[in-house]
Amino acid sequence: MAPPASRRLDQLVQALQRLPGVGQRSASRMAYHLLQHDRDGALQLAHALQAAAEGIRHCRLCHTFAEEDVCPTCADPARDPAQLCIVETPADQAAIERTGSYRGRYFVLMGRLSPLDGIGPDDIGVHPLLQRLQATPAVQEVILATSFTAEGEATAHIISRLAQALGLKVTRLARGVPVGSELEYVDLGTIAHALADRR
Amino acid sequence: MAPPASRRLDQLVQALQRLPGVGQRSASRMAYHLLQHDRDGALQLAHALQAAAEGIRHCRLCHTFAEEDVCPTCADPARDPAQLCIVETPADQAAIERTGSYRGRYFVLMGRLSPLDGIGPDDIGVHPLLQRLQATPAVQEVILATSFTAEGEATAHIISRLAQALGLKVTRLARGVPVGSELEYVDLGTIAHALADRR
Repeated sequence: MAPPASRRLDQLVQALQRLPGVGQRSASRMAYHLLQHDRDGALQLAHALQAAAEGIRHCRLCHTFAEEDVCPTCADPARDPAQLCIVETPADQAAIERTGSYRGRYFVLMGRLSPLDGIGPDDIGVHPLLQRLQATPAVQEVILATSFTAEGEATAHIISRLAQALGLKVTRLARGVPVGSELEYVDLGTIAHALADRR
Repeated sequence: MAPPASRRLDQLVQALQRLPGVGQRSASRMAYHLLQHDRDGALQLAHALQAAAEGIRHCRLCHTFAEEDVCPTCADPARDPAQLCIVETPADQAAIERTGSYRGRYFVLMGRLSPLDGIGPDDIGVHPLLQRLQATPAVQEVILATSFTAEGEATAHIISRLAQALGLKVTRLARGVPVGSELEYVDLGTIAHALADRR
């Protein structure tokens, strides 16, 4: 889509396609928008990208993105070290935090098993998790909060086996009918799980 | 969506939302992807953004993005100065160039009239176009190649009046049935135009 008028424009359109979900057409549109209407935004994004790429690493304890050796959540002495909640991404962790109903600690896998995409246990944080579990005798319960998709379930299964081998209690987020939904519109698998797990 | 773990991550997610069509959820996903899987891509994008924002300006003649005072297309002495094709964006210009069937010159509006969005004649390149037409007596025909939408038609209408006031011949891209399409599936407005403009 890009005209041959400018090598820098071509390079920008190319580089924007490194973003997930952005193809050539979206990249052209983004480049034109930034150059035509928001050069400040382009420079701000350039600086934010550089600062993040050079300054963000993984928390030594929970593996999430952090600027320090240990992230603020892990450094908080008020969090209960007996519970360790396993999530796939920082966004999942943020969602749980927003509920305000969990005061334990976290481990962020930064992904989930996906054999079809070539993502195995070594590509997500399974090995650091094992080290964390072995090095932290305070952990008593591992709460599996991976997605309820085939990949999330497979990830939960592997971690469950590892944690049980270490003699830890392993729990999984409850499956059931979402709050606020009418039964008529809930899928059958969910209703079946909600029936089986009734309490 | 972003966890409070890192100010740099927050700033990156904010900055990514300056891109058109990118909301908070997409921005988080892009930031995680770059930091987890493609830090080289993040740095490459940072450099491309900076180079483009600082090095790309508008061609003095056709108003498109260019690194030099005059873009390569305008600087090409082989192009026919008697024809001036008016397009909305560099992408539209590139589409016409790819047909290989136009050897005249261009003027790129960098937008189209959109009163509902507050985009009037002063926000697109109507004023520079008028200067270009007045300063270039070689132009004999103005070819309107704006979109066949309400906004593109309004844009074409305004430019048509300006060009006619200068005594120039004004033409519009033909409306009609797209090549390769079956009549049954072509919308009625297009068929009506194709009938009226039959030749």
